[in-house]
Amino acid sequence: MARDTRQRILDTSLAMFNGQGEPNVTTNHIADELEISPGNLYYHFRNKDDIIEQLFTRYEERMDAALSGSPADRLPDLEDIWMQLHLVFETIWDFRFLYRDLLDILSRNRRLRTRFGRLVKRGTEKVEDVMRGMVRAGAMRATPTEIEATATNLLVIITFWINFASLRGDRDEQASIRVGIVQIMMLLSPSLRDAERVHLDTLTRIYLD
Amino acid sequence: MARDTRQRILDTSLAMFNGQGEPNVTTNHIADELEISPGNLYYHFRNKDDIIEQLFTRYEERMDAALSGSPADRLPDLEDIWMQLHLVFETIWDFRFLYRDLLDILSRNRRLRTRFGRLVKRGTEKVEDVMRGMVRAGAMRATPTEIEATATNLLVIITFWINFASLRGDRDEQASIRVGIVQIMMLLSPSLRDAERVHLDTLTRIYLD
Repeated sequence: MARDTRQRILDTSLAMFNGQGEPNVTTNHIADELEISPGNLYYHFRNKDDIIEQLFTRYEERMDAALSGSPADRLPDLEDIWMQLHLVFETIWDFRFLYRDLLDILSRNRRLRTRFGRLVKRGTEKVEDVMRGMVRAGAMRATPTEIEATATNLLVIITFWINFASLRGDRDEQASIRVGIVQIMMLLSPSLRDAERVHLDTLTRIYLD
Repeated sequence: MARDTRQRILDTSLAMFNGQGEPNVTTNHIADELEISPGNLYYHFRNKDDIIEQLFTRYEERMDAALSGSPADRLPDLEDIWMQLHLVFETIWDFRFLYRDLLDILSRNRRLRTRFGRLVKRGTEKVEDVMRGMVRAGAMRATPTEIEATATNLLVIITFWINFASLRGDRDEQASIRVGIVQIMMLLSPSLRDAERVHLDTLTRIYLD
């Protein structure tokens, strides 16, 4: 049952962090919500940062899976990219507390900072791979410099999209996640060959309707 | 002399915020640095947020000027955009304390949040104008949807570039500002017509050498 309690603490913490903002939730709040004693909580986790670190491990596994899932037997097409972006933004949505207070959380914990940096690097390389694949497939036109810069720009937008949407006053965070996916596809649009560019335009219209 | 003291307080605060990080600087530190009494400082400013608000006004004026400066008598070309981006990133550099802790600072002060939101909106419209101008001049190929999305993406990257560079471990903040300018130009590159795309590639090589 100890293992159950541990998982329940993590699940409840994630829900509370996402709902109320990580800075507003203490270990006492979490224990209260679960109707367990603070001592019981401290039996499983040293402190709130320990909980965050375990949640980060879950996040990391989800993001790793999202980054891995692309066809092995053929070059990626627009639908593959769209699907993969969905998985990435779904992960961001499920761990949105992390993205909302990313700089604070990472500045408090050097290990998480290193691990997040590694994910950004992996994501950048993944985007470069996909773009090179599309150039090979004749679906995209891009120089090596453009591929490198676009991959980095894409990671900036993915990483800070939630914060930007909130800065400019978007109220519905879940709706803004949908817009984020379109923003990323539109980042790639000008590099596409004509047929793919028109195809993307159609996909986008259907998606936003 | 009161006016001089007021300006000196603002100048010193800006230098200290940029150098040490705004969260690490108190009004007492600022008074110490200026060798004035805290009472004298409080004669000019109610508190630290009041100082930040006055510095924000300076920042806003600089950014407004950077956004206004484009040729009135002809359509903008690549060099105009490059020059304007320089002014924008120079402003970001001079007020980097603001960008480093943007979300914290804006969450503490609703008025600044509104003013920053207005700047983002103005910046987005400006980029859209420039891109439409380049399409008219035959230097760029972009649909209205692409123009709108690219302008927004550009603002996300400008707003969070310093934070992203620091997250991925760039040590030299001033060097990363230079890279930021190139990242933005590369965001526009795939939309350029061939001649301009080659021209931009040349400009970028010279700039980074």
